[in-house]
Amino acid sequence: MSETSANESRLVRVELGERSYDIQIGRNLLAGLGETFAELFPGAKVAILTDETVAGLHLSSVEKSLQVAGIESHSIVLPAGEKTKSYEGLIRACDAVLDTRLERGDLVIALGGGVIGDLAGFVAGIIRRGMRFVQVPTTLLSQVDSSVGGKTGINSGHGKNLIGLFHQPSLVLADTSVLDTLPRRDFAAGYAEVAKYGLINDPAFFTWLEDNWAEIFNGGSAREEAIARSCQAKADVVAADEREAGQRALLNLGHTFGHALEGMADYDAKRLVHGEGVAIGMVLAHEFSARLGLCDPAVTDRVIDHLKAVGLPTRIDDIPGQKPDADLLMDFIAQDKKVSRGNLTFILTRGLGQSFVEKGVDPVLVREFLTEKLAEN
Amino acid sequence: MSETSANESRLVRVELGERSYDIQIGRNLLAGLGETFAELFPGAKVAILTDETVAGLHLSSVEKSLQVAGIESHSIVLPAGEKTKSYEGLIRACDAVLDTRLERGDLVIALGGGVIGDLAGFVAGIIRRGMRFVQVPTTLLSQVDSSVGGKTGINSGHGKNLIGLFHQPSLVLADTSVLDTLPRRDFAAGYAEVAKYGLINDPAFFTWLEDNWAEIFNGGSAREEAIARSCQAKADVVAADEREAGQRALLNLGHTFGHALEGMADYDAKRLVHGEGVAIGMVLAHEFSARLGLCDPAVTDRVIDHLKAVGLPTRIDDIPGQKPDADLLMDFIAQDKKVSRGNLTFILTRGLGQSFVEKGVDPVLVREFLTEKLAEN
Repeated sequence: MSETSANESRLVRVELGERSYDIQIGRNLLAGLGETFAELFPGAKVAILTDETVAGLHLSSVEKSLQVAGIESHSIVLPAGEKTKSYEGLIRACDAVLDTRLERGDLVIALGGGVIGDLAGFVAGIIRRGMRFVQVPTTLLSQVDSSVGGKTGINSGHGKNLIGLFHQPSLVLADTSVLDTLPRRDFAAGYAEVAKYGLINDPAFFTWLEDNWAEIFNGGSAREEAIARSCQAKADVVAADEREAGQRALLNLGHTFGHALEGMADYDAKRLVHGEGVAIGMVLAHEFSARLGLCDPAVTDRVIDHLKAVGLPTRIDDIPGQKPDADLLMDFIAQDKKVSRGNLTFILTRGLGQSFVEKGVDPVLVREFLTEKLAEN
Repeated sequence: MSETSANESRLVRVELGERSYDIQIGRNLLAGLGETFAELFPGAKVAILTDETVAGLHLSSVEKSLQVAGIESHSIVLPAGEKTKSYEGLIRACDAVLDTRLERGDLVIALGGGVIGDLAGFVAGIIRRGMRFVQVPTTLLSQVDSSVGGKTGINSGHGKNLIGLFHQPSLVLADTSVLDTLPRRDFAAGYAEVAKYGLINDPAFFTWLEDNWAEIFNGGSAREEAIARSCQAKADVVAADEREAGQRALLNLGHTFGHALEGMADYDAKRLVHGEGVAIGMVLAHEFSARLGLCDPAVTDRVIDHLKAVGLPTRIDDIPGQKPDADLLMDFIAQDKKVSRGNLTFILTRGLGQSFVEKGVDPVLVREFLTEKLAEN
């Protein structure tokens, strides 16, 4: 096996003053994890939070790497799936970390996808009023999005990510070779967030993706390029607006619709995973923008074409199972964190890669739009 | 009824940059709460978190005051007692606040003692990744200690306050007239924290307390003076060290021993409340300092005399029920948040009001000391 050494990996810095940290991106980083930790966090013990699926694939190599480096580690394996991002999963994970008797200065490792990253970051943020943690994302979605920026949390019966906090990791290790074992559907779901960075404000990146997506999926060097550019885009936005007072909201392109669709599908991964909700949500955001006369409908067609090409759903009708009604979707949208004084905030667009934050969206217009979309499907 | 107007109340500022806030201290502030909110937080709705005991005494006047000011409010009444500071209490409170559909910019009011303040602050800190909140402490303990400084949290089976975060309130309203209805035992327990500020670094304040404690208990103007001086002392420490990297730990004088005693008593308020644990803990801290040759034993006697005079327990033996053994207490001490690399941090003292943070305390010495104390009782 030929290993890429650490200095061949790409580095993206998230600039947040005393909370700044690096994102390392490259192949076979897991094998060197223990060494990296020994250098960056001397003396710290670790608790590895992971799920059953990821544990089966990657836990033993992480444990071995830590052991070789002489680092005490404790592994906590939770059930796989969005249901783990719940009150129950939170309590179980907190108690398990407390069982290890780790101290404030020790580390929690989030080894897994977005669910584990969001949960482990939350757990680290509230144990002993804040332990350090390291994101080791094992899905494309978590490598390009959820592991960067410090948003953590769980879902409640009221909606997604309604309980959580901002807690920045001390390091993100994105090992791109672990994506080789990722099911294609999950890879595509993560790719929706990659495409999102193009659609927010980088039309050249979107065009590059249209030309290079096959290599990204197949594991060529375009994959590291796409991940690094995505992380850089996110890092820039987060550095400018850590707690989403303004422009960070751009990262929610497609998410308000997407979250509502996920809620409607009861967070059932068989029906819809997050990235698929975002894909459909981004199409809806473009269609809604077109309907408001903001954006040329041809742009929407181009977005749909590309998302379809990589195998993503693009219509509410693509979601299997019972079709939602507009009331149910509006109910989820009203519970979204991005609501202010009854007005809705949406990310709208004036063209390809020309998104902007619109705070004063009248719920009546959204309901009309959704009602029509549901009727035409 | 003669009302004290707002400008007769005392004001203490907690200086924390963009997270700065005021502590208002005075009689009959609850009656003007709605007016205060309308002025400081225009347009914000509120969720009042309180417990059954406090609700019976003060909720209707708070609700009425908000109603008169035209502020939409929702009341959430939880069971009274330390058991509410639990995972179960947290979930119940989070769901209840989400039920109100309040938004990020709205407010949570913590109306109650330390349990409600710690829980409500935590809830506000994690709903929608952070809502604003206002502390309205109704016990002496919470007015002089827990409502100021942003520490929030709940207990777990592993120990006290092990789950939580730093989340600063936007305002603290300490209505000293509500203390008139406080049971004497609870007032005395809160007074332990007042005495603590003298013992940390203000011997003149301790001497003043020896002379004026009766007036403080009886509701004379020395009460506001004592509360304002305590809040100022805490505000100074918090402003210098918000997240307890160093000197803020001084506020834990008596708390490492005290928390262990509370844990040993299963957080059963019939046996021991927090302030009583702190009182015994402060005596132990002085005795331990004396045993290490740091502090004149005569200082311990003076501390014991004053705490006894106001009706506080001063010995482990004063706690009703089964006597702990040293192993059990050491177990709780080892789980304390103030542990670093196996060494214990204690607040020790060189004399009256000469406390300091000692990070490298050998657990063997603590165990020996506790074993002797338990044998001599």
